[in-house]
Amino acid sequence: MEILSSPGEMQSRVRQLRQSGKSVGVVPTMGALHEGHLSLIAAAQSDCDIVIATIFVNPTQFGPDEDFDNYPRTLNRDLELCQQTGAALVFTPAVDDMYSPDNNTVVAVAGLTQTFEGASRPTHFDGVTTIVAKLFNIALPDKAYFGQKDFQQQLVIRRMTQDLNFPVEIVTCPIFREADGLAMSSRNRYLNPTERQQALALNAALEECEQLASQENLSASELQERLNAALSAAEGVDLDYAAVVDAATLLPVNSSSKDSVAIVAAQVGNTRLIDNRILSSVGH
Amino acid sequence: MEILSSPGEMQSRVRQLRQSGKSVGVVPTMGALHEGHLSLIAAAQSDCDIVIATIFVNPTQFGPDEDFDNYPRTLNRDLELCQQTGAALVFTPAVDDMYSPDNNTVVAVAGLTQTFEGASRPTHFDGVTTIVAKLFNIALPDKAYFGQKDFQQQLVIRRMTQDLNFPVEIVTCPIFREADGLAMSSRNRYLNPTERQQALALNAALEECEQLASQENLSASELQERLNAALSAAEGVDLDYAAVVDAATLLPVNSSSKDSVAIVAAQVGNTRLIDNRILSSVGH
Repeated sequence: MEILSSPGEMQSRVRQLRQSGKSVGVVPTMGALHEGHLSLIAAAQSDCDIVIATIFVNPTQFGPDEDFDNYPRTLNRDLELCQQTGAALVFTPAVDDMYSPDNNTVVAVAGLTQTFEGASRPTHFDGVTTIVAKLFNIALPDKAYFGQKDFQQQLVIRRMTQDLNFPVEIVTCPIFREADGLAMSSRNRYLNPTERQQALALNAALEECEQLASQENLSASELQERLNAALSAAEGVDLDYAAVVDAATLLPVNSSSKDSVAIVAAQVGNTRLIDNRILSSVGH
Repeated sequence: MEILSSPGEMQSRVRQLRQSGKSVGVVPTMGALHEGHLSLIAAAQSDCDIVIATIFVNPTQFGPDEDFDNYPRTLNRDLELCQQTGAALVFTPAVDDMYSPDNNTVVAVAGLTQTFEGASRPTHFDGVTTIVAKLFNIALPDKAYFGQKDFQQQLVIRRMTQDLNFPVEIVTCPIFREADGLAMSSRNRYLNPTERQQALALNAALEECEQLASQENLSASELQERLNAALSAAEGVDLDYAAVVDAATLLPVNSSSKDSVAIVAAQVGNTRLIDNRILSSVGH
């Protein structure tokens, strides 16, 4: 496994590999890898000749009061895991490698980014789309792998990729959960034992929502009401949003909607958690 | 010469060519080709195995009161010229090929875009950087060629290319002028015979400026004053701006400036014209 931190060297290395006919999959991460990330590497592994994992805690996607400074950094462990999972290349740039002092360009998606995570974290998605555009240009992949846990993020990245004609296929991989159902997240390690228990309410509410959708045939707005009620009543859970919306647009479900998605965000202690569940054929 | 209008087909075609080891140069144009454009194609031709010319009148870089509808469209003549100059591929998408109805992504450069053309045409550069990013992803070039006449534009595109790590080298080619000195522009055909004469004032003022800089050793601010005076006095010329600034930043010339640039914009009749001259070693 090769480890590179220079964008230019990475670019040359990938061009060389592509020149020799290899297909390339990239898995962009902020490190602190868990099984969710490893499942992305494994998916890339089964689709592509060469897998590149990127590990970069991107400052521009954190708000001023968020956890950039404290975000878990576990590089040695991450590299071991990348090696074990079969990544051929790991890209681990420093902040200075990615942002020169006179850097002044932003890639911004409108629309999709105005609600939910975008409403709660106003500069977040500009940071995400800009860094992903940069990583696409550095790792020059055929395919890029993202987790469904960040549901809105993968939609925004799909929009950006299509709008800017990046020659990259976006693959969204299923949520990985702990044995008790908590969606895996690098931020779960912030939770103390009490909070860890309280955090189960998110998945429990989504599971109930899924059952109500399939068994009782409730409408999207009825489901959303029940989801909100369950999470508002959950102890230790400070709800940010809970919604059942069109899974392609994040707008209210309507007659032309295909899949819907139940998405939730909440603060448990000082930790912000998100989770979601795709629901097929919910009426409006 | 192949002519393609589908972004996806263009992308596949270029990937194929790159795969076979060819280097690729792209010349983005809005058509209405003149010798300035042809010199870009010729430069690309001498550097690269394959030259791609793109012809697309990009609506998003025109303001609401600008000349998008009337912009000259001379596709058949353009294609002949591309063929004669040796372009291997021409990309001529329709507006719908480039912007889907749910398109919502903008690439924006801050700083450099706030002054001069950016001040006079507030949405212009966002349109330019977004379409150029798209064209880079569609034509996948090693090098891209732009004219020095749009001086601020090539600076903004260089900034965007570097900030987003596009694996593309930007080449800026010298201004091409008519025999009497008028900088070539697709918009020159808007000028009536009187205006065509009046328009010579731009190059004349820049030439005087260059002479003053080299012979009388005037400072940047003195040169700027003389340039403004000359153009303000010129008959039929409605001056927008005339400035002598740092050629890398477009900020005032200071002790660490290398080259300076004299840049001017003016309305002659209903036609907006720009021109510039690089001045080496002007004092601040």
